[in-house]
Amino acid sequence: MMAIKAARAYSGKPKIAKCEGAYHGSYDFAEVSLDPTPESWGNGDPKSVAYAKGTPRSVLDEVVVIPFNKPDRAERILRAHAQTLACVVIDLMPNRAGLIPATPEFIAMLQRFRKETGVLIVLDEVITLRLGYGGGQAVFGITPDLSAIGKIIGGGYPVGAVGGSADVMAVFDPTREKPLLPHGGTFNANPVTMVAGEAAMQHFGQDEIDQLGMLGDKARAGITTAFDEAGLPGQVTGLGSLLRIHTHNRPLTDYRSSLMSAPEKSQLAAILRRMRDNGIFVNERGVCSLSTPMGVAEINIFIDCFRAALGATQAAK
Amino acid sequence: MMAIKAARAYSGKPKIAKCEGAYHGSYDFAEVSLDPTPESWGNGDPKSVAYAKGTPRSVLDEVVVIPFNKPDRAERILRAHAQTLACVVIDLMPNRAGLIPATPEFIAMLQRFRKETGVLIVLDEVITLRLGYGGGQAVFGITPDLSAIGKIIGGGYPVGAVGGSADVMAVFDPTREKPLLPHGGTFNANPVTMVAGEAAMQHFGQDEIDQLGMLGDKARAGITTAFDEAGLPGQVTGLGSLLRIHTHNRPLTDYRSSLMSAPEKSQLAAILRRMRDNGIFVNERGVCSLSTPMGVAEINIFIDCFRAALGATQAAK
Repeated sequence: MMAIKAARAYSGKPKIAKCEGAYHGSYDFAEVSLDPTPESWGNGDPKSVAYAKGTPRSVLDEVVVIPFNKPDRAERILRAHAQTLACVVIDLMPNRAGLIPATPEFIAMLQRFRKETGVLIVLDEVITLRLGYGGGQAVFGITPDLSAIGKIIGGGYPVGAVGGSADVMAVFDPTREKPLLPHGGTFNANPVTMVAGEAAMQHFGQDEIDQLGMLGDKARAGITTAFDEAGLPGQVTGLGSLLRIHTHNRPLTDYRSSLMSAPEKSQLAAILRRMRDNGIFVNERGVCSLSTPMGVAEINIFIDCFRAALGATQAAK
Repeated sequence: MMAIKAARAYSGKPKIAKCEGAYHGSYDFAEVSLDPTPESWGNGDPKSVAYAKGTPRSVLDEVVVIPFNKPDRAERILRAHAQTLACVVIDLMPNRAGLIPATPEFIAMLQRFRKETGVLIVLDEVITLRLGYGGGQAVFGITPDLSAIGKIIGGGYPVGAVGGSADVMAVFDPTREKPLLPHGGTFNANPVTMVAGEAAMQHFGQDEIDQLGMLGDKARAGITTAFDEAGLPGQVTGLGSLLRIHTHNRPLTDYRSSLMSAPEKSQLAAILRRMRDNGIFVNERGVCSLSTPMGVAEINIFIDCFRAALGATQAAK
């Protein structure tokens, strides 16, 4: 929310663009088109679809929705709205949209659009920060104007933060007159969170990231092999310490291709229920996140549990 | 933010009403007309004035601004918009608008409007919760549809929460299908905050509230006496453990009457600077909040420090 407000304050322009199916918190503008369906997304370009009941029509009108990983269509839509856009909000691997990495072509388009129009790039790194020592932006090779971060930087306590280039961040500057964008609030500058977050970050260096990446590769390979052995449709997406299990074999590029059908949802639910009964809880979307206390032993337990759940699901057919 | 979104989801209506000068967090809609000036507030009814640069015009259009403690004018404005209003957001003693308690007439108007139109009352109790064991709503005698709470319920950790009547809170219910208003996010259900908050609340009972109220009365009386003795214009507002120092003698009813002129601001700053130099820091608006570790000794130190600062300010004239 503060990153979007900062982009508006810096540019003086009201609209934002975001990718269909991408989650960026519960700020109304960021929630637009978070979970559209074939019934609501229409035939042509993505439409602004409300996520919650009661979302004002005016909020929908301030949001331009683009398809993830479809650079040509996305660029055409962005250029049509460039005059009124404050920013494009991007998650490089949006978990609700399939945990599919952004393609080099999509990133190149965003950078070209940024350069030619001046519309800011706001990177949502709340989840992807953990992918690299320089965040997801270093891994994917994109330099945003603003980055929204959170989760791991709080060391277990609630936290959110915004960083960016000095000229954009100047909108928050309270040292002279009232800033363009005052930033106060109960959540700000909590001392315990700041101390815990710094301690956690001191213990999260390149070695830890490399180790988690190796474990993630191992987990993804194990899941792929298990699907093959069981003869069940399925695949896994993700990078580094993040992965998502899918119960179909469609080519995955964006939100629409990742959206599960009712039978695919049931299949995933059946697998995850069996895993839970055997001691491993995975969230209902099949998204997993590895953490530094884990080692090879834990990944092996995870893969064994997953394989057993697949086998039982196959046998129950 | 979640309380406003809940009122919209429950009612299906887009607009909110709020009082001029009242602070309700950094959600754009809640920030409208937080700090208007005689230049921006116009001649007639309060207008929707942006607080931050870049606030979309559409946001301003979704917010109806009413004058605090002016029941007749406020009611006329509210009734004109009742068909599109999801809720009226109220702080019973808004600190940015002077820390002036709502009058019985203003509260009676709100309750009548609620009853006759069905437009929900959202009470911002983030600060006023501490005024009574049943919150500010028990002290002032108003039953809201939704209450937003925070600060003291976190035991020192960042926290916010929304409560209300079962039929309105049902918009969050995730136990069946997707709720009308899904409520997820990084800040939710933090275990440490929940444990610390419960512990803090277990230690904050009627005795503590009574004691803080007694100390607050003592502090306010001391400030009033000190202004009298120094022969300087000034007064103090507040209730219970909350107080705000004003460097003028205007009758205080609402935001506009409490807004400091440049000389009044300088006078307050001079007093607070002298207090700070003598070891007591008061925020730039002159708002103070007492806490349970304080006793009569601390209040006496505070009053002595304030009296000395007034005397030095008087002598420097």
